[in-house]
Amino acid sequence: MNRINLIALGVKDMNRSMTFYKQIGFKCYEDAENPPIVFFDNQGTKLELFPLEKLANDINEADPPAISNQGFSGITFAINTKTKAEVDDLMTLAESSGGVMVKKPEIVSWGGYSGYFQDPDGYYWEVAYADTWKFDEQDMLIIEP
Amino acid sequence: MNRINLIALGVKDMNRSMTFYKQIGFKCYEDAENPPIVFFDNQGTKLELFPLEKLANDINEADPPAISNQGFSGITFAINTKTKAEVDDLMTLAESSGGVMVKKPEIVSWGGYSGYFQDPDGYYWEVAYADTWKFDEQDMLIIEP
Repeated sequence: MNRINLIALGVKDMNRSMTFYKQIGFKCYEDAENPPIVFFDNQGTKLELFPLEKLANDINEADPPAISNQGFSGITFAINTKTKAEVDDLMTLAESSGGVMVKKPEIVSWGGYSGYFQDPDGYYWEVAYADTWKFDEQDMLIIEP
Repeated sequence: MNRINLIALGVKDMNRSMTFYKQIGFKCYEDAENPPIVFFDNQGTKLELFPLEKLANDINEADPPAISNQGFSGITFAINTKTKAEVDDLMTLAESSGGVMVKKPEIVSWGGYSGYFQDPDGYYWEVAYADTWKFDEQDMLIIEP
């Protein structure tokens, strides 16, 4: 496991956010008004760890944003597995490594098997599997246009 | 521009977080104690937009986490460009598309040229360039071990 399949941003106005990301150059096949969810394919991404206060200063040293990383920030990361057992294994591993199991894996409304953990700073990660999924050569979900 | 080069998590205890992510399977070359920053290479990642309240319910419908996406959540996304002009162009485009310029691009302490914007929901994005950078075939930064 060395990938992040999805970064999900919780948005308040789908059309507004979809238009914003399309305008700044992200490509997606979605052209409906107000779709329930939108995906943008991307090339590889690095995960980076950076001391929290320093990252706030990196954003603006003269006027750093107030840090409020308690509760749910609106951002989640997701790892999609190829078997149901991998979900259980990774959730167990996350918990024994210092994470917190927020939702035990279960069959969810869209038919998949999904759980959530929080990392040591409280960031949310979903681990999910569905037997209908197809993957590309980089183990990324193929979402049909 | 159809990529996210970096997802940065602001962390409170670098060793704790580095150990956590290594244990759950992310690979990095860093083996120093308490390094100033850590990068984990990944395969491709999709960016996803999801209605905020529904995403909180997806995490745990029975006990959704309290939403607190005001201020700085501790997470940033970064796009690394191949020219300085691309930084200015993308920052201008983000602003004219409904984003907010949080830090005008400037030469920063590590020698690069970097700015930050917020998307319509307030999520932070860095756009940065440095003339010392090398990229791989997916336009991902090559960070030497």
